[in-house]
Amino acid sequence: MTEEIVAGIDIGGTNTAYGLVDKQGKIIADSTIDTDKSPEPDGFIKILAGEINKLVAEAGGFKLKGVGIGAPNGNYHKGTIELAPNLTWKGIVPFADKMKKELNKPVVLTNDANAAAVGEMIFGGAKGIKDFILLTLGTGLGSGFVVNNEVVYGHTGFAGEYGHVTMIPGGRECGCGRKGCLETYASATGIVRTAKIFMEERKDYSLLREINPALIDSKLVAEAAEKGDKLALDAFDYTAEILALAIVNAVVVTSPKAVFLFGGLVKAGNLLFEPLRKHVDRLIMPVFRNTFEILPSSIPETNAAILGAAALAWKEL
Amino acid sequence: MTEEIVAGIDIGGTNTAYGLVDKQGKIIADSTIDTDKSPEPDGFIKILAGEINKLVAEAGGFKLKGVGIGAPNGNYHKGTIELAPNLTWKGIVPFADKMKKELNKPVVLTNDANAAAVGEMIFGGAKGIKDFILLTLGTGLGSGFVVNNEVVYGHTGFAGEYGHVTMIPGGRECGCGRKGCLETYASATGIVRTAKIFMEERKDYSLLREINPALIDSKLVAEAAEKGDKLALDAFDYTAEILALAIVNAVVVTSPKAVFLFGGLVKAGNLLFEPLRKHVDRLIMPVFRNTFEILPSSIPETNAAILGAAALAWKEL
Repeated sequence: MTEEIVAGIDIGGTNTAYGLVDKQGKIIADSTIDTDKSPEPDGFIKILAGEINKLVAEAGGFKLKGVGIGAPNGNYHKGTIELAPNLTWKGIVPFADKMKKELNKPVVLTNDANAAAVGEMIFGGAKGIKDFILLTLGTGLGSGFVVNNEVVYGHTGFAGEYGHVTMIPGGRECGCGRKGCLETYASATGIVRTAKIFMEERKDYSLLREINPALIDSKLVAEAAEKGDKLALDAFDYTAEILALAIVNAVVVTSPKAVFLFGGLVKAGNLLFEPLRKHVDRLIMPVFRNTFEILPSSIPETNAAILGAAALAWKEL
Repeated sequence: MTEEIVAGIDIGGTNTAYGLVDKQGKIIADSTIDTDKSPEPDGFIKILAGEINKLVAEAGGFKLKGVGIGAPNGNYHKGTIELAPNLTWKGIVPFADKMKKELNKPVVLTNDANAAAVGEMIFGGAKGIKDFILLTLGTGLGSGFVVNNEVVYGHTGFAGEYGHVTMIPGGRECGCGRKGCLETYASATGIVRTAKIFMEERKDYSLLREINPALIDSKLVAEAAEKGDKLALDAFDYTAEILALAIVNAVVVTSPKAVFLFGGLVKAGNLLFEPLRKHVDRLIMPVFRNTFEILPSSIPETNAAILGAAALAWKEL
């Protein structure tokens, strides 16, 4: 008997990762192709559909039930990828519809952070949790809000853009064209900006001053902090304080049972979680004190994007 | 044939209003009693249940289907009223359960702002709108978030406390024990605080300086602004700017189709809406520009509380 399986696809600026995932969240087979393999989305979709059919055929004994896609600026309601700044495709691409025609299977699409939230819900630490928030702290900050077991997509299908909540009016310039957005502070890129600003503003010694500024990344800031470097530790504390304020402000809206953190910056572990929990305890509205936990995502980062997209397919199809 | 009807109850610090409401949102009969009619909730619930049965009997030709209750610190999940600072009852009162026993009818309870949101959804301007936010700008700021036709109650049942989103860290002292909460700025009380601070900080003439400061309320600030008083107009602009930032920050989370404003401060009409829409246009994340409207509630204020509670009963029972 053939077993049902779904394909999870994660479209990134450089690579597109895809894999076959069973109902238990096991990746049966996976691969990647260059997202600019074809300059036009139509060509790319044809190639990608062919690769998926090939993967299913090679795996043997499986029947493709459907496809889940996570994409930057993915619109759940319309199945479109709209004006994604990191992709070469222009305008509004009806990606899900085109993929459906190629594969003759149901296709569901959402943005990458919402897909990650579904991954956490179906395969990760949010199993059985009806209300939670997932924040991905990578180059930017992505978010998925889950209310009563459903991802919040909103009227437009673009809900859950918590990286662009304004934390400091008139603050740091953001890629969205505005200033003071959360992701300019609380992300792998944000903490590097903080460390560099501290290096300009302050005169105290720091291990980070020994490094070519162009090479400083969040991992090096974490390494310095691990060694007790005051400036690097302060950068973590500052990042944690702004993230804490953003979290307590989200909690008054959706009152989650858990806030999961995912992505590059989360690898710093307690360097981030300890000051974060301290500031959350200080800033939280009393009625919500101790009603939620802040936890690292339990999905391994290497597979998260494919698993999230596949979880969406398992959930919706 | 007897027509089905529900009772809507709004529990306030001073009065409790209740009424019988038909499926079209028509109030058949209504009345009020003092909330401190009995010092203990048990006694009060007995009296209130008796009054409702009396109202049904007097109205004639109706059968009570159930009861909806809006209450400060009302918990939807548990049907409790918990530690409400404006009520004399202490601790956690299982109000819905007790009322159910008295009346032998289903009872559903939530906080007053969430009830107002359901009123807007069932009987008001949000009919047919799946995603919206309602903000009540009265003594404080209450909120109800509706996502995909459902009020967001969250893990605790207390979600939607947007009056306590921190807008200015270290800002104005709030009744919740923290500082800088939205309701200390954007509410009928908040705009009065703003006007008084401006009167202290500034030296320019204002009509408000002719009034005994203890008597200044939001209506008088609006009257002065209506006459072109610069300080009063600036108070509206400042209020609108903070409210605008709070709205654009909520929009990135739930992406509503409409934001409804309700309550005392909204009576100022364009004095509030004009600067509010101007600031929202300036502050909104580009992807959400022109995807939602900011509108006054279409529920008449005098009946809103009873209608909201009744709408909850019609929706849930």
